[in-house]
Amino acid sequence: MKNEKQKALINLKKSKSLIETIIKMMEEDQYCINIMQQNLAVIGLLKSANQILMEGHLHHCFANALESNQEKRKAEMIEEILTVTKLLNR
Amino acid sequence: MKNEKQKALINLKKSKSLIETIIKMMEEDQYCINIMQQNLAVIGLLKSANQILMEGHLHHCFANALESNQEKRKAEMIEEILTVTKLLNR
Amino acid sequence: MKNEKQKALINLKKSKSLIETIIKMMEEDQYCINIMQQNLAVIGLLKSANQILMEGHLHHCFANALESNQEKRKAEMIEEILTVTKLLNR
Amino acid sequence: MKNEKQKALINLKKSKSLIETIIKMMEEDQYCINIMQQNLAVIGLLKSANQILMEGHLHHCFANALESNQEKRKAEMIEEILTVTKLLNR
Repeated sequence: MKNEKQKALINLKKSKSLIETIIKMMEEDQYCINIMQQNLAVIGLLKSANQILMEGHLHHCFANALESNQEKRKAEMIEEILTVTKLLNR
Repeated sequence: MKNEKQKALINLKKSKSLIETIIKMMEEDQYCINIMQQNLAVIGLLKSANQILMEGHLHHCFANALESNQEKRKAEMIEEILTVTKLLNR
Repeated sequence: MKNEKQKALINLKKSKSLIETIIKMMEEDQYCINIMQQNLAVIGLLKSANQILMEGHLHHCFANALESNQEKRKAEMIEEILTVTKLLNR
Repeated sequence: MKNEKQKALINLKKSKSLIETIIKMMEEDQYCINIMQQNLAVIGLLKSANQILMEGHLHHCFANALESNQEKRKAEMIEEILTVTKLLNR
């Protein structure tokens, strides 16, 4: 696994553990504002994981494809990046 | 538990299960773009949970405080809402 | 005009002037990445204006309504705030 | 000017005209919620312009660089794309 994926994995594991805490907070009927703040913290972790994954993708998968002569694959990868930036952009 | 919190809880549980899938995808070194798309799906679920929690908060906790005469508490609650919209706004 | 509205107005005027610069950059066919960065700077200014307006709204319009006994108006204002947080949340 | 840039330019011009309306609304001290909704509409237009510009960039500027043998330029362009996705991701 690439360095970036490992960093992103740490963020994902933190997110999972934080979501478990939030579910518990909700089951204990804790205060909504506190739950929302934790929820927004998970969103922050996942956004950061996403940026790290994008870095890994462009530096490795994409950079490798660029060195090859697979024109069709390069064009496909450009569309994939646009699909992700479109979702990010929302 | 209020109706809204129950709906938000369903979203949180879906998010947890999807994050577990993503962690597995990463451990199996699956394709980054697929991982990012799942990751963005979780962000979507959590944002939706947040809006549902905000609805519950304004309709119940906040509406109750409005009916009381606790002026200090009302002012505090306004600041809490602003804290959350500030984070949302990022 | 309230203090917050004046601050937000400054952001709006900066945004207008920056958008004029961006339109000029586009008409001169300048580099897309530079245009996107300026574009994202305007989005930042507008988000910040929005948070300032929300602060003004909750501190003044909303706080005034709370002190009145217009129950229907209070309920309406809660729905208005939710409409805006829903858009913010996207 | 490329097709995408022309579409994005239309969005930018609409944004400029909408911001002028918002400035006028603020100077007339109109209702904050209405101002915020218009403000969020401009943010939507600018985000959409950004996605269109990214499409144009990847389909033209970037695709052209890929066909060349300027390895250093390709690496630079990858960093530029990451700079923009980082800002988008906020």
